[in-house]
Amino acid sequence: MTIDKLKHAMFGAPFRTSQEHEERLDKVRGLAIFASDPISSNAYATEAIMSVLIVLGSSALGLTWTIALAIALLVLIVVFSYIQTILHYPDGGGAYTVAKDNLGVTPSLLAAAALLTDYILTVSVSVSAGIRALTSAFPELIEYRLALALLAILILTWMNLRGVRESGTVFALPTYAFVGGVLVVILIGLARFYGFFGLTPIIPELHQIQPDHTFTSFALIWLMLRAFAAGCTALTGIEAISNGVAAFKRPESKNASQTMVVMGVIAMALFLGISFLATHLDLIPTEHESILSQLARTVSGTGFMYYWVQFFTMMILVLAANTGFQDFPRLASFLAKDGFMPRWMTNRGDRLVFNGGILTLALLAGGLVIIFNADEIAMLPLYALGVMLSFTLSQAGMVRLMGKVGRLKPGESLKTLATTIHFESGWGWKRLVNGFGSFVTGIVFIVLVATKFLEGAWVIAVAIPLLVWMFRSIHRHYENVAEVLRTRDLDEASLLDVADVVILPMGDVHRGTLRALRYAKLISKNVRAVCVVAGEEQRARLLLRWNRFPKTTAGVQLVLIDYDYRDVLEPVIDYIKRVNYNEYPGQLTSVVLPEFITENAVTQILHNQTANLLRNRLLHDHDVVVIDIPIHIHTPHEPLGDLDSPLTSYTTEIVTSDFQE
Amino acid sequence: MTIDKLKHAMFGAPFRTSQEHEERLDKVRGLAIFASDPISSNAYATEAIMSVLIVLGSSALGLTWTIALAIALLVLIVVFSYIQTILHYPDGGGAYTVAKDNLGVTPSLLAAAALLTDYILTVSVSVSAGIRALTSAFPELIEYRLALALLAILILTWMNLRGVRESGTVFALPTYAFVGGVLVVILIGLARFYGFFGLTPIIPELHQIQPDHTFTSFALIWLMLRAFAAGCTALTGIEAISNGVAAFKRPESKNASQTMVVMGVIAMALFLGISFLATHLDLIPTEHESILSQLARTVSGTGFMYYWVQFFTMMILVLAANTGFQDFPRLASFLAKDGFMPRWMTNRGDRLVFNGGILTLALLAGGLVIIFNADEIAMLPLYALGVMLSFTLSQAGMVRLMGKVGRLKPGESLKTLATTIHFESGWGWKRLVNGFGSFVTGIVFIVLVATKFLEGAWVIAVAIPLLVWMFRSIHRHYENVAEVLRTRDLDEASLLDVADVVILPMGDVHRGTLRALRYAKLISKNVRAVCVVAGEEQRARLLLRWNRFPKTTAGVQLVLIDYDYRDVLEPVIDYIKRVNYNEYPGQLTSVVLPEFITENAVTQILHNQTANLLRNRLLHDHDVVVIDIPIHIHTPHEPLGDLDSPLTSYTTEIVTSDFQE
Repeated sequence: MTIDKLKHAMFGAPFRTSQEHEERLDKVRGLAIFASDPISSNAYATEAIMSVLIVLGSSALGLTWTIALAIALLVLIVVFSYIQTILHYPDGGGAYTVAKDNLGVTPSLLAAAALLTDYILTVSVSVSAGIRALTSAFPELIEYRLALALLAILILTWMNLRGVRESGTVFALPTYAFVGGVLVVILIGLARFYGFFGLTPIIPELHQIQPDHTFTSFALIWLMLRAFAAGCTALTGIEAISNGVAAFKRPESKNASQTMVVMGVIAMALFLGISFLATHLDLIPTEHESILSQLARTVSGTGFMYYWVQFFTMMILVLAANTGFQDFPRLASFLAKDGFMPRWMTNRGDRLVFNGGILTLALLAGGLVIIFNADEIAMLPLYALGVMLSFTLSQAGMVRLMGKVGRLKPGESLKTLATTIHFESGWGWKRLVNGFGSFVTGIVFIVLVATKFLEGAWVIAVAIPLLVWMFRSIHRHYENVAEVLRTRDLDEASLLDVADVVILPMGDVHRGTLRALRYAKLISKNVRAVCVVAGEEQRARLLLRWNRFPKTTAGVQLVLIDYDYRDVLEPVIDYIKRVNYNEYPGQLTSVVLPEFITENAVTQILHNQTANLLRNRLLHDHDVVVIDIPIHIHTPHEPLGDLDSPLTSYTTEIVTSDFQE
Repeated sequence: MTIDKLKHAMFGAPFRTSQEHEERLDKVRGLAIFASDPISSNAYATEAIMSVLIVLGSSALGLTWTIALAIALLVLIVVFSYIQTILHYPDGGGAYTVAKDNLGVTPSLLAAAALLTDYILTVSVSVSAGIRALTSAFPELIEYRLALALLAILILTWMNLRGVRESGTVFALPTYAFVGGVLVVILIGLARFYGFFGLTPIIPELHQIQPDHTFTSFALIWLMLRAFAAGCTALTGIEAISNGVAAFKRPESKNASQTMVVMGVIAMALFLGISFLATHLDLIPTEHESILSQLARTVSGTGFMYYWVQFFTMMILVLAANTGFQDFPRLASFLAKDGFMPRWMTNRGDRLVFNGGILTLALLAGGLVIIFNADEIAMLPLYALGVMLSFTLSQAGMVRLMGKVGRLKPGESLKTLATTIHFESGWGWKRLVNGFGSFVTGIVFIVLVATKFLEGAWVIAVAIPLLVWMFRSIHRHYENVAEVLRTRDLDEASLLDVADVVILPMGDVHRGTLRALRYAKLISKNVRAVCVVAGEEQRARLLLRWNRFPKTTAGVQLVLIDYDYRDVLEPVIDYIKRVNYNEYPGQLTSVVLPEFITENAVTQILHNQTANLLRNRLLHDHDVVVIDIPIHIHTPHEPLGDLDSPLTSYTTEIVTSDFQE
């Protein structure tokens, strides 16, 4: 009762199942919610490129701008490619759904595994980067960054277990404040750089850093590829809208695709702006201060603007982490519904959220943060691979879908597993866009794996196939279960053959065993009490007590086992096994177990765990029914309140079948 | 099966209960076994004194010798006092037994708590000191000392779980080798010091260390007391023989008391010898090398003799730790037998040793070693208090006993709880010895607590009363249990009133629930299947499936609970509670639970833990019988081997009562 109260205070009172409703998003809020992840990448994407280039010396940092342009182009392709997905999957077309629908099970599991790993990283990277924004502004906090990051994950977990309503306006504020703040910094920066409006020009501080050694041309190309791969983290989160099409106001697909375009434009504007200024103001990546922080400081000094940018960087990163808490449990529940993840991932808790998925994500992301000591730059090599693989598979799925469109005649339509496709003109060039998108992201995926392999990408390269194997194993297990439980062609008569015997293992004759004995006698006329005795003295004492209760022990066979070891389980199990297999082959034997129940777990350890061990072994290894007779050392709870009226929250209905047999 | 094999390979094949036998010890082996603890104290006792005195500067180290003499005197008193105990408790008279017999429960629990804390410290201090002996000889190992100490505890635990036969000659070797080695060092040292036999005299290196500041005379006295208290660790383990009198060859008491005298003489000879030389050779305690190591090195160089002493110091310390592994489980089992510790502490494992006590000790001692980073000097303030308190209580008990002797007439005798006392002359002066022993050790105990309080003795001062409280709580719990199970005045008719109703909570109609339903129908004509349904669709599907099995569902009430939350446990428990309290008050309701059994724990987590949770809540909170019907996803084990003949290791006997009722 008190635990319930505590739970309600922490997580809020339970919601009714029927309370679930989907508040639809307009474009302004939709943008704020779905864009927080891709827009927040600007907090580290430019820096990730520069961290690679710096080994070539500070003069090579000028290449950042070129690489940023290439990445912006890639974003353009992906955005246009995904618009097709959004238009064709108005109920939400994540990579898992699209791949399942068009490519088959294995590709869909690959896409799901890729996305799940990426969602975990979204949380750990975003939270760590958010904390870096904080410590860039307040360097004295730097030694607490791991604790702060874990605290942030804890708060996010708590909020999500309470159930965050996605539509809250509170979510819109940080996103727009961040975009606004960074845009202002970029504009002032550009104005000062070009000397517009008579603003004081910025004189870049020149920290000449020389490369350690000279590079071969192969090494140079390799470094360019690595820098490009590093910058690809800017693409993470772009796909989020495709999952959430159904959350938009009508017409969903149109609103969602327009939002996607705006999102792509804003994200790229910030990315290019930051990259341009970082390059032309000769900023240099350091351990202690993020590039974005340096940029804001250089452009506008350590004043209001600076703290605005830093604060909303942190906020938008936390929001981005929050999208991980939305996406991971949702995808996990899809997988669980299809039998590829533990079924309880589909269970919604008191607050109608997927508690299982939220907690799993929190543990995994928290683990990563600990392993990497909340250093998001070190985590980045693991990031973006998953998302790129899911882009590739999702777009490949769209190519297939467009192929089907092409085979339709005007007016015709076709139902696939998750969507309905209609004839439409222009399928050819749309297919081309998707194909190109799939091809390019596929190439980028290979580049990512190759260039980041030794830095950590191998973890993902190992984790994704492992996850797919896990999904398949789980699925196989559930298929076995379904087979065992199948009622089709079930012959009711074959269900169960119960042996007319009840066995009672006992250590001594006391009130508890006598109680169990009487219960056993109710079930069967063939009751056997089994007792392991060590020595004549114990035997005599047992018989003495046994004979003191003639009414209860009458008609019961007392089986005494003389055993010269202390392990009482073995001979008892052996005896039960023999009865089960020799006397009643193929029938279900019943075992009555008197079990001590104490007030709490502490007092429970004062008792031999014999009953528990025996129950587990019997149930697990044999086809035996175990009947637990509680022996309460404390008094069991009396019912509280009025038992005459049932809980107001449920109604009971009794269906009685006709009594003919 | 394979787990069994692994277990046998690691810990040896099980011993039969009847195999237990007590191999009796002669005096030579008895000395080796019981003396390892007190004799091994010489590895650190002198150093402990010097570590205190060094704050007064190196010139004050000369006082070591004086303090050592005082401690030797104390040992003399304790030895002679304990001889009385040995003579009167030939079955073994540990402080717990003697106090229980003569002083009552609380003093005996105090003594037991004191001894248990000390046994834990024996293990952690001796192991740490043993590792220091090793690292003194091989300083490159110093950074691994924690790992080495834990490894030593692990090996000791393993050996003791296998069952160490105390009588093995292997135990005699290190003790005598250590005594011999140290004696030779002392003799050579004395000879060289006094210039006998023309040996090269030792020129002490003079490291003048000045005190930090001047001391008041009160501070000086305080420091003397602290140095004395520190040296008292030399007394630990002296009482061990009194516990083990029964292990000696006949006449037990005589052999044991003679061994005790020899032990005291040897231990004191070494202690005084080491202290004398350490004082007169101006040795100075350092972090890196023990005093004993310095002494051996100074006297005989870093040669054979030196390594001999170091090696056997380590060995005897490990042996001393081993006595902790003998004493702790034995005392814990005495307490458990009297209901003051968990009853399973009395269970002997496959190898006839007290597994529970051994593992508890290993965990606690290992924890201490970790907390103190295997630094035995830091642990010493906690040590010796327990032993001193137990000396005090045990000797006070003897004073009482001797008082009873005094009241006997010639030829009379009297049975106390644990021993028989006879008339004997001279009880007066024996009582005086015991009284003096009790008084002196009591004073020393107070000095120990006072002087070491802030250094760590407060831990023990807190732990001992807490332990006594724990003993008493456990005892109270077992008394409650006995009350509940009491069969005296039991009216058999009042035992159990079973309600003629069986409730089956179910989630769906499948092979498992149908099987459970059939079992339920065997037990009662009043079967109710309870199902929580959320929504019309689930309801219709359930009814459809339900009606497909008319033979099984005939006569069963189907209770549908319409519940608008996801937590299915609450309404089901509420329903059962209502049936239990409203329809069948005071009677035992039966609940049938179909339960998924999968191959292993990994696959088990794929299933809702609903059945487990439901069983635990029902058994714990209510007086309800729970019947577990296993639904095996895998095939349960088939019996291996021939089931016709029972295991050769047990015999079964069937006692059938007369069939009149």
